[in-house]
Amino acid sequence: MEKKEAQRTEIGKLGEFGLIDKITQDFQLVDPTTVKAVGDDAAVIDHGGKLTVISTDFLLEGIHFDLMYQPLKHLGYKAVVVNLSDIYAMNAIPSQITFSMGLSNRFSVESVEELYAGVRAACQNYDVDLIGGDTTSSRQGLVISVTALGHVSKDDIVYRSGAKAGDIVCVTGDLGAAYLGLQILEREKQLFMAHPDIQPDLEGQQYLIGRELKPEARRDSIEYFRKAGVKPTAMIDISDGLASEILHICKSSGVGAFIEESKVPIHPDAEQMALKFKLDPITCALSGGEDYELLFTVDPGDLEKVRYMPSVYIIGEIVDRKDGVTLHSSGGNIHPMKAQGWKHFTWEHLYDNQPPTESL
Amino acid sequence: MEKKEAQRTEIGKLGEFGLIDKITQDFQLVDPTTVKAVGDDAAVIDHGGKLTVISTDFLLEGIHFDLMYQPLKHLGYKAVVVNLSDIYAMNAIPSQITFSMGLSNRFSVESVEELYAGVRAACQNYDVDLIGGDTTSSRQGLVISVTALGHVSKDDIVYRSGAKAGDIVCVTGDLGAAYLGLQILEREKQLFMAHPDIQPDLEGQQYLIGRELKPEARRDSIEYFRKAGVKPTAMIDISDGLASEILHICKSSGVGAFIEESKVPIHPDAEQMALKFKLDPITCALSGGEDYELLFTVDPGDLEKVRYMPSVYIIGEIVDRKDGVTLHSSGGNIHPMKAQGWKHFTWEHLYDNQPPTESL
Repeated sequence: MEKKEAQRTEIGKLGEFGLIDKITQDFQLVDPTTVKAVGDDAAVIDHGGKLTVISTDFLLEGIHFDLMYQPLKHLGYKAVVVNLSDIYAMNAIPSQITFSMGLSNRFSVESVEELYAGVRAACQNYDVDLIGGDTTSSRQGLVISVTALGHVSKDDIVYRSGAKAGDIVCVTGDLGAAYLGLQILEREKQLFMAHPDIQPDLEGQQYLIGRELKPEARRDSIEYFRKAGVKPTAMIDISDGLASEILHICKSSGVGAFIEESKVPIHPDAEQMALKFKLDPITCALSGGEDYELLFTVDPGDLEKVRYMPSVYIIGEIVDRKDGVTLHSSGGNIHPMKAQGWKHFTWEHLYDNQPPTESL
Repeated sequence: MEKKEAQRTEIGKLGEFGLIDKITQDFQLVDPTTVKAVGDDAAVIDHGGKLTVISTDFLLEGIHFDLMYQPLKHLGYKAVVVNLSDIYAMNAIPSQITFSMGLSNRFSVESVEELYAGVRAACQNYDVDLIGGDTTSSRQGLVISVTALGHVSKDDIVYRSGAKAGDIVCVTGDLGAAYLGLQILEREKQLFMAHPDIQPDLEGQQYLIGRELKPEARRDSIEYFRKAGVKPTAMIDISDGLASEILHICKSSGVGAFIEESKVPIHPDAEQMALKFKLDPITCALSGGEDYELLFTVDPGDLEKVRYMPSVYIIGEIVDRKDGVTLHSSGGNIHPMKAQGWKHFTWEHLYDNQPPTESL
């Protein structure tokens, strides 16, 4: 009864952004209340008052999380936070979430309560309301979908597209730690599976593991912008790594940029752990992902205000498009900035019977 | 590494609504822009202009659809329509959707284009914009999550909770057909699996099958309400069957109701097919689900206006709470109205190695 396909193109061939471009190109916007559709951290609609900002994310077991080491409570927390991060990236205030889940019969009422304890903690910490969702059974483990809504005045909204040559490039915190936390957890999982009697050795790695399992969104940065009277010219949250995100800003804004390698903040624990794993710390920072810091650009006139912003790092500058997007290495070399593709579609763990690992 | 659970309560024991009650009871609403959280067809927020109405639904392969007989284009269409139906059920106008999907490597670019052709067709037919979504890989077949947004003025919004004794109970179209369409598809699937050389016999069943595979939402009803100056006192869309939905309205409104069995609209094709399957047609109409008609109540003063509404059926009346929710059978008997529980969690297909069937 299923129709045979005439042609078959693998999704990996197009990659995430290629696929999204292809499938959304024929969609025309018709509703006058749509301000911004695909192509930013969140969509924007205008129902007459403040702008409403909407972001949505899937978290699928075996792709985005592994319950071998992800406690359900942290998972619930993280599922909310990663969406709030997208709302903050529009310089908006998150106000509501919907939380949907599909559960296989492996999950008990108690485990769902654990998950929701994390959702509740996130709602409380960020002052957002849970307003709905869909709850269903699943044949396929745990699947989660969260949609976050926020609001922002027309004057305050920040897109990816406003960066201009001369703007300063900033990041709100250190990078690469979440990726290294994940590497530790994966290593301990492999050891545990080979030797179930050995206890996992996570001593002294709270920072890295915490960054992976229970990230926070930069509410404080958005609050600082309001207080200090700063409006970034462009902003994005770092979910796929600094390299990917600066390329997004530059593409949307029609500009180039350089990033000073020596200015990219890396936590000492991350630096040490990268070396232990024989990884280049800067590569972890550029492509590691899941840090949920904000990457933003400001007019050079706002330099003084940004300088006093807590935990902010000035890492580069926006330049003309023709100068490209580059990394200025500590050794004085200039490299073109390269983003990793859509890791979930390009790595082997997609194929069945492979353990899910999120590798670079 | 995974913690042992001290206690294990099966989710089926609580059922859908019990589980939702349990996990949401500790959530406090804190955001002043939240007007209505869980407990209606959609949540309602107020960002200063019109009210924004939000609804979200999961569609999981093996639970909500079977690609053996669900064409991808129809699936994309249906995924959108079932959410728009929730927006209409608030007497609101849908304006935007987000469409998220997780895809296993079984799916090609061409199959995703098919799916999106259906999404696009629904967006065009209902004049809504696709404004975002999340696209990821999945180890678990096809998983879809749609969120729909709409708007409505404060004066026009209709909740489940406004029905009062004396109101008339109406439904916008015939019931039970989608369920019988599904039974036909399941029967042909079983035959096909036993005898792959036999072509499926779907002749003359377009109506029933179409109701299941490609439902429509009652945009026309909402438009009629505006034109005729009618505002229902309560409204809900029929996704789980008439019985379940009238019980929702009565519980939310603190009233009872009676439904006249002989007035419940059943399409002749549905009636005939029910008898072929040795099912009671009224049971299919009461508990079949997936009809996506609107069930609403109006003040008796609006009776004349409703009488001229196209394709509307007056099927009962709201009564005092103490009189309960009852079905007045054609034979003169009075039965208490009973809703089927959460079918996805209570039927065997939840358990692995069982074929997914949506039975009553």
